[in-house]
Amino acid sequence: MGIKRVFSYSLGPEAGVKPNQVRKDFSECKIRGNQRAGYDIDELLTELERILLQTDNSDIILVGMGNIGQALAKYNWLNRRNINIVATFDIDPSKQRKRSDTVIYPMDRLAEIIERFSVKVAIIAVTEISAQEVCNQLIDAGIRGIVNFAPVILKVPPDIVVNNINLYDEVESVFYWVAFENSKKQSLSSIQDIE
Amino acid sequence: MGIKRVFSYSLGPEAGVKPNQVRKDFSECKIRGNQRAGYDIDELLTELERILLQTDNSDIILVGMGNIGQALAKYNWLNRRNINIVATFDIDPSKQRKRSDTVIYPMDRLAEIIERFSVKVAIIAVTEISAQEVCNQLIDAGIRGIVNFAPVILKVPPDIVVNNINLYDEVESVFYWVAFENSKKQSLSSIQDIE
Repeated sequence: MGIKRVFSYSLGPEAGVKPNQVRKDFSECKIRGNQRAGYDIDELLTELERILLQTDNSDIILVGMGNIGQALAKYNWLNRRNINIVATFDIDPSKQRKRSDTVIYPMDRLAEIIERFSVKVAIIAVTEISAQEVCNQLIDAGIRGIVNFAPVILKVPPDIVVNNINLYDEVESVFYWVAFENSKKQSLSSIQDIE
Repeated sequence: MGIKRVFSYSLGPEAGVKPNQVRKDFSECKIRGNQRAGYDIDELLTELERILLQTDNSDIILVGMGNIGQALAKYNWLNRRNINIVATFDIDPSKQRKRSDTVIYPMDRLAEIIERFSVKVAIIAVTEISAQEVCNQLIDAGIRGIVNFAPVILKVPPDIVVNNINLYDEVESVFYWVAFENSKKQSLSSIQDIE
């Protein structure tokens, strides 16, 4: 597009944040811009790539091939990022026989596969009841980061990274904020009625 | 279990937050406890139900019946919360003929169904390319809150609630923090080496 420089006030709305958040984040990452000339696009891209791609190994395993697990296994991870599901696991032997793009291993091969591929990150998509036990097994086998789709808060040592994605909470919070927006509107209109 | 009172220092770890966060949140919701006696469980439950269940209509529609959409349609939403998917939509007529627990409607019936069920919240699970257009249609038809699984930031009016769940970002952030934890550990061990 021939654009050479970019400004926080144009990046902010694109990313869904305020321009001062853009400037703050960039500044913390030692990316310098200036008020009148903004950020040099080439420099910005180089710096962002350096920060984001410092993790060259983006291999991941996926435990639990129920509905959510299967959808995540088919998700086009390589589309935009370098994320690669190297193996999936399930406790159910009938699922292990199913044809799939990714091999579904039994749970007792977890430690072996994690070691073979030097995987550090895992997705948990098992049921709520098994999630903590699976989490413990993963950590014992060398996993350092977990994306957890089971609707339960996992207990992990402080140096283990967990990202809990509770689908119930994600949907429920939208209902909550819609009700909140609605009550704001009603109280505004009642104020106007009084006036 | 016969327990009558509960304390922030026991609720905090269960919810994965610090005890002072529990006290702060409860206090903002006008739930009062006291330092020595904690919170009365019956009072606490009544208050939390009042706050969380003020949205008695938890009907929702789901647009996009690809891998993620199908998994979400089969998700056991009623298991713990009152969330109920009343209709699903897809642009592909072959999907509309598929048997499924929930009817899959064509997109041109969006406005009609939203009005019929008075639905206020929708899940978007369409492709990145169609997400903004679908979002606009939903808002025109009366939707006030959106849970968006398409990897794109939706542009909406300020009174519309959007919860963006970008699966790429959710996984990538774990890789990032694992690398960060790792670099912390390395710099600690090099400090120890010097000592």
